[in-house]
Amino acid sequence: MFPKPPITPPPEHPRLFFRKRHLPELKAKTTHPELKQAWERLIGYSRFGVEEANAEHCPGDVYVIEANALLYALLDDRGAGLKAKRLALSAITKPFNPNYQDISREIGRLMLAGAVVYDWCHDLVTAEEKTFLIRHFKRLAGLLECGYPPVKEGAFVGHSCEWMIQRDMLGTGIAIYDEDPEMYDLAAGRFFDQMVPARNFFYPSGWHHQGDAYGGVRFQGELFPTWMFDRMGFGNVYDPSQREVGYQWIYTRRPDGKLLRDGDTPPPMPNQTKYTRLHFLYLMLGSYYKDPYFVCQRRKDEGRLHDKDVLFAFLFADPDAAAKPLDELPLTRYFGAPTGAMVARTGWDEGIDAKTVVAEMKVGMYQYNNHQHLDAGAFQLYYKGNLAIDSGSYKGSSGKYHSPHNKYYFKRSIAHNTILVYDPDELTKHPYVKDGGLVWPNVNDGGQRWPNEGRPPLTLHDLLNKDFRRGDVLAYDFGPDKFKPDYSYMKGDITAAYSDKMKQFQRSFLFLNFKNDDHPAALIVFDRVVSANPDFRKYWLLHSIEEPRIEDGRTIVSRGEDGYNGQLVNDTLLPERSNRHIEKVGGPDKPYWVFGTNFVNDYPGTKEQGEWRIELSPREPSALDLFLNVMQVKDIDGPAALDTYKVEGRTFVGAAIGDWVVLFAKSGERLAEDTELPNVPNAAYRAGRTLNVIVTDLAAGVWTAEERSGGADQAGASRQPRHAGDFEASAEGGLICLRGADPAATIVLRYKGAADERRAEREGAR
Amino acid sequence: MFPKPPITPPPEHPRLFFRKRHLPELKAKTTHPELKQAWERLIGYSRFGVEEANAEHCPGDVYVIEANALLYALLDDRGAGLKAKRLALSAITKPFNPNYQDISREIGRLMLAGAVVYDWCHDLVTAEEKTFLIRHFKRLAGLLECGYPPVKEGAFVGHSCEWMIQRDMLGTGIAIYDEDPEMYDLAAGRFFDQMVPARNFFYPSGWHHQGDAYGGVRFQGELFPTWMFDRMGFGNVYDPSQREVGYQWIYTRRPDGKLLRDGDTPPPMPNQTKYTRLHFLYLMLGSYYKDPYFVCQRRKDEGRLHDKDVLFAFLFADPDAAAKPLDELPLTRYFGAPTGAMVARTGWDEGIDAKTVVAEMKVGMYQYNNHQHLDAGAFQLYYKGNLAIDSGSYKGSSGKYHSPHNKYYFKRSIAHNTILVYDPDELTKHPYVKDGGLVWPNVNDGGQRWPNEGRPPLTLHDLLNKDFRRGDVLAYDFGPDKFKPDYSYMKGDITAAYSDKMKQFQRSFLFLNFKNDDHPAALIVFDRVVSANPDFRKYWLLHSIEEPRIEDGRTIVSRGEDGYNGQLVNDTLLPERSNRHIEKVGGPDKPYWVFGTNFVNDYPGTKEQGEWRIELSPREPSALDLFLNVMQVKDIDGPAALDTYKVEGRTFVGAAIGDWVVLFAKSGERLAEDTELPNVPNAAYRAGRTLNVIVTDLAAGVWTAEERSGGADQAGASRQPRHAGDFEASAEGGLICLRGADPAATIVLRYKGAADERRAEREGAR
Repeated sequence: MFPKPPITPPPEHPRLFFRKRHLPELKAKTTHPELKQAWERLIGYSRFGVEEANAEHCPGDVYVIEANALLYALLDDRGAGLKAKRLALSAITKPFNPNYQDISREIGRLMLAGAVVYDWCHDLVTAEEKTFLIRHFKRLAGLLECGYPPVKEGAFVGHSCEWMIQRDMLGTGIAIYDEDPEMYDLAAGRFFDQMVPARNFFYPSGWHHQGDAYGGVRFQGELFPTWMFDRMGFGNVYDPSQREVGYQWIYTRRPDGKLLRDGDTPPPMPNQTKYTRLHFLYLMLGSYYKDPYFVCQRRKDEGRLHDKDVLFAFLFADPDAAAKPLDELPLTRYFGAPTGAMVARTGWDEGIDAKTVVAEMKVGMYQYNNHQHLDAGAFQLYYKGNLAIDSGSYKGSSGKYHSPHNKYYFKRSIAHNTILVYDPDELTKHPYVKDGGLVWPNVNDGGQRWPNEGRPPLTLHDLLNKDFRRGDVLAYDFGPDKFKPDYSYMKGDITAAYSDKMKQFQRSFLFLNFKNDDHPAALIVFDRVVSANPDFRKYWLLHSIEEPRIEDGRTIVSRGEDGYNGQLVNDTLLPERSNRHIEKVGGPDKPYWVFGTNFVNDYPGTKEQGEWRIELSPREPSALDLFLNVMQVKDIDGPAALDTYKVEGRTFVGAAIGDWVVLFAKSGERLAEDTELPNVPNAAYRAGRTLNVIVTDLAAGVWTAEERSGGADQAGASRQPRHAGDFEASAEGGLICLRGADPAATIVLRYKGAADERRAEREGAR
Repeated sequence: MFPKPPITPPPEHPRLFFRKRHLPELKAKTTHPELKQAWERLIGYSRFGVEEANAEHCPGDVYVIEANALLYALLDDRGAGLKAKRLALSAITKPFNPNYQDISREIGRLMLAGAVVYDWCHDLVTAEEKTFLIRHFKRLAGLLECGYPPVKEGAFVGHSCEWMIQRDMLGTGIAIYDEDPEMYDLAAGRFFDQMVPARNFFYPSGWHHQGDAYGGVRFQGELFPTWMFDRMGFGNVYDPSQREVGYQWIYTRRPDGKLLRDGDTPPPMPNQTKYTRLHFLYLMLGSYYKDPYFVCQRRKDEGRLHDKDVLFAFLFADPDAAAKPLDELPLTRYFGAPTGAMVARTGWDEGIDAKTVVAEMKVGMYQYNNHQHLDAGAFQLYYKGNLAIDSGSYKGSSGKYHSPHNKYYFKRSIAHNTILVYDPDELTKHPYVKDGGLVWPNVNDGGQRWPNEGRPPLTLHDLLNKDFRRGDVLAYDFGPDKFKPDYSYMKGDITAAYSDKMKQFQRSFLFLNFKNDDHPAALIVFDRVVSANPDFRKYWLLHSIEEPRIEDGRTIVSRGEDGYNGQLVNDTLLPERSNRHIEKVGGPDKPYWVFGTNFVNDYPGTKEQGEWRIELSPREPSALDLFLNVMQVKDIDGPAALDTYKVEGRTFVGAAIGDWVVLFAKSGERLAEDTELPNVPNAAYRAGRTLNVIVTDLAAGVWTAEERSGGADQAGASRQPRHAGDFEASAEGGLICLRGADPAATIVLRYKGAADERRAEREGAR
């Protein structure tokens, strides 16, 4: 079935979650103030009577079983051990209706509770009782969604990647290994053969593809083998980059305590600022990797543990792990291959009034399906409220998996801040979406394609050999200070995310931290979109919670309700005024509008799922269209927004805002020849100020900048070009930043070749 | 909320399901041999220990509770009563996950078990315990899908029409009425205000719209109030036509023991010939109405009762009710308004080799949605195997409610033997389907529209005032012998079932019982279809289990696998050969093909869900098309099929088969003027045989037939017309049948006016 696992449980009991050698450490925890809550709750569970174990007021018989078994293992409380056994022998016979959604979670936990008794109370369980338990373990395993042998579903996503194999079947296999090695060989066999390679592939990016809700759930499931094998004495069975994934939900944390949304996720509720789910995750992760920022984040999220987590919190917590404040972290983090995302922040302060801006930019190199959305290229922007949002909801009967809202709106590109290209004939070519053995009619949202027709990859081989690749990062950089960068830049090619209706989609994100309270930041997005047919209409989307206001080329999104005070002002510089149409779509009757149908979601309680978007489209049919949008944020009641200006020459086009000019190559290619930068319009000058000019899309190497005073010089001053400096564009970034440029001068860039050639040259000259 | 119920529980205990006065009768049942199985199983339930009640080997704590309570009520077994109470007080505190599908069935049954203890063991329950139970009854009621107060869902369909209101909430309300009348007032209030009028509307048709699977389930739920109010002393709270509904599953029973399919239903399994569900239904219905045919059907279906039914089987069975054999029943039954369906049989013999033919013809006047299909106009035909079938499956994860197979194939017209009219623009006009708070994209199957956009009617007022009407019966008749008719006829106007793409769809069904073992029967279907646009392609569908063979205008469907030996031979007489295209669609790769997408269903185990169909279409665009198909049945290895002939004149068109000629008006209108019938082609004569001519579409009244010898008479015989008789066409039927007509003669019909006018005339002449 699967190759034999490379390691096997040590020949002693206990060995599930801990061994004899861990007992002193665990006993010490019972009196550690940090673990007071967990330990007292375990004691509380242990006290429920045998007859109460299934009553409404008891959190569940499995917790009573486990807690009593722990009292035996830790404190040698024989009465507790016998009570655990008695309850386990009765509970293990329970029937389950396998048709109930997610019942595998309950079944698996009951197996685990039985396995805990089997292992921790090993000398209290007779041979006959062991045989009885093993028979029921296998009966229950057969009811699990993954099947027994556990061959169903895949190694990347789905319920099989939660606890049923990686904790419950594995844990039970560990407990019964001496008497019956089958279950361990199957569970650990599949784990090492499939789950480990799949995870070691994406862990290095530090980003979990299943999003802010399911990513955390699944990742927490993946942490159990980390602990279980380590506690058996085998060290870390994964690549240590597993640790990096924990930074995803630190960087995407909004100052108001909620998370930027990603994938299938409920909208954050107004009073939700703590995540007990993440609290527990950071406990498992931070205690294992001794990461002080995870310890810090866990403390921020501290709250009442879920009953299901209490035992593990007690077993795995390192109460003495040291924390470090998050503001020691760099403000920008690049989540590299195979994800390709960047989060740029302006600070770490907290609260609904905090000044911190958070921008998320996503290329998204792979599409794993399941709870991941078709959101390649999407961005989000938060300032004193969520302004550019990820829209839709996973809540309520109208929002769940396989609901039309989920399948036709929430998961689709149309619910995200990315680009649509509407091929009216798309459904003829892609008439259906497949998922979980089902074939659904497709709906034309103008957005990205479903790789593998909608089904997730089963293995790493599957992921790499089918059509799951959806984008590439062409460039990224941030600086000049790597801890508090002024600019954070990423460019992606997102063509592959679409069907052949798309010939090219390149998106450049450039986030500017103005370090100015009145005008804290701007996100500039430049798109180069080539459709297969000039008649395919293109849509640039910006989703918002509150109704946007459109004033010619300026769109104003406020977040003024619910105590927020943030505003996003977007200036559309391309397409040109004569060739653009900006339409407001949404409102109570069509918040989830997909070209004629509103895919309702009626879950109340928050406005965070959004209700509005703007659609920006060129008016004239054209294969190639460029979009240039400058989104600045400010307080609703703050000063007027900065003026913005299009800056365009033969080779470059870009925007001027405040003291900054940002230029992108119109060709989409990296430039390797001398070129004159376009002049900034006179109106953009401010007396006595110089400009900072960021030029992107440059070949790696050294560039020399020359400033030439512009036009007829009234004072008759010298027109001799001034050497403004040498700048190095890195291979990853392809970007230079000229600080203090003369706004009236024309800048000419000269390419001096690749940096190492230049270095060699210089060295040769010496 | 709802009007106060007109009747209230009598002031005594017990009163739930029985009163003191019923005790002798119930006690007598404990020793009645007919109820041995039920009583012994109740005793068996009662013996499970308190600690076993939740184990896998116990059918459920609720049965242990109820059985012990019964032992107290019936036999004064105090120990059993106290055990029932102890278990009930503990079980009633159970938590439930309301997100689990159909969990309301479990919650309701637990309420009922508690109510049974409350009522039957009333003097063992202290006032404090009563308060405790009532609190939990209300807690549990609040978890039910219908809500508490029970305002959710509708009065016709859905889970609210199962047991949760009509048995569990009502029963609990009855038990606690003296201490707390609220629950009774709500449950009985809604029942009398909404459920009773809705049911009294459709009961007279003797047909349950929710089909052969859900119809039985829901109808069984509806029978609980019948019994519960009657046992309290109030007689029948419904219209007594409730009884008629029982005939649906007697007439639609196939000789091989399975049911003709209707609505959401699993395909019958090869070994399935008994229906314990229907067994229990006929027990409740037959015992109440003392209907001897239901008693007979119950005995045929006898088998092991489901655990959930055992108590009620014991309480409600009338072990002395007399049976009568089904073959005393007329072979044809018309299920009138507001259904409009007819089942014509040729006998009642049983077994896979039985000679009985069963034809179902459905107009279907109302569409209630939920589990009902868009199948107006559909027919089914069984002979030694299912030949013209209702296709698709409700089984498996790929076939359940809201699955694409269910929503886009199984429920739709395309899965049924009716007519499609393909408007390529349909989705623009009807882009979605709504159901249960969800909006789904629509799929164009060319079929019938969803009334109320897909949502069910909530009340009778809703049904009558929205667009749920989908057809009308224009005529029906069978005879001449009403017990063993030669012909069974129904004609419907099914235009309203479609969107405005359909201008007229009239379908005439004429089933001929040849009373001949070689050629047992034929079903002739004549359609008059007028589309709004001549370019809308029309499809006449015939679904089959095995692959059909097409030989020019003849389609042969065999059912030769799995031990069957039946064959259907369909001759397409219209459209004409030059203007028709017959295509075979299906097979393993596209059994559920809907214009480009196969909506998979992968449930194995039977072939009854079908895999094939033919699509018969006119080649030339035309607003009006006539379809005339003659389907005869025979043994696969029997003699050659009968030849069939089109018979067409100016006014009528029809078919000749064997000794029969059947004519339909080409105009679709009822004729009220003298007319010459078309001659039968020479090839259709058989020496020495006369013909039986059925003329449909005639105005009600008396018609005189004259026979004129045809053409040049070689023998020079008299051409004087021969008076062939006076025939009366009824208002309902509009049909006459001329027996022993001279095949060579031309028949002229003369209309003598409405029958009562004629009678008045005759009486006046006397």
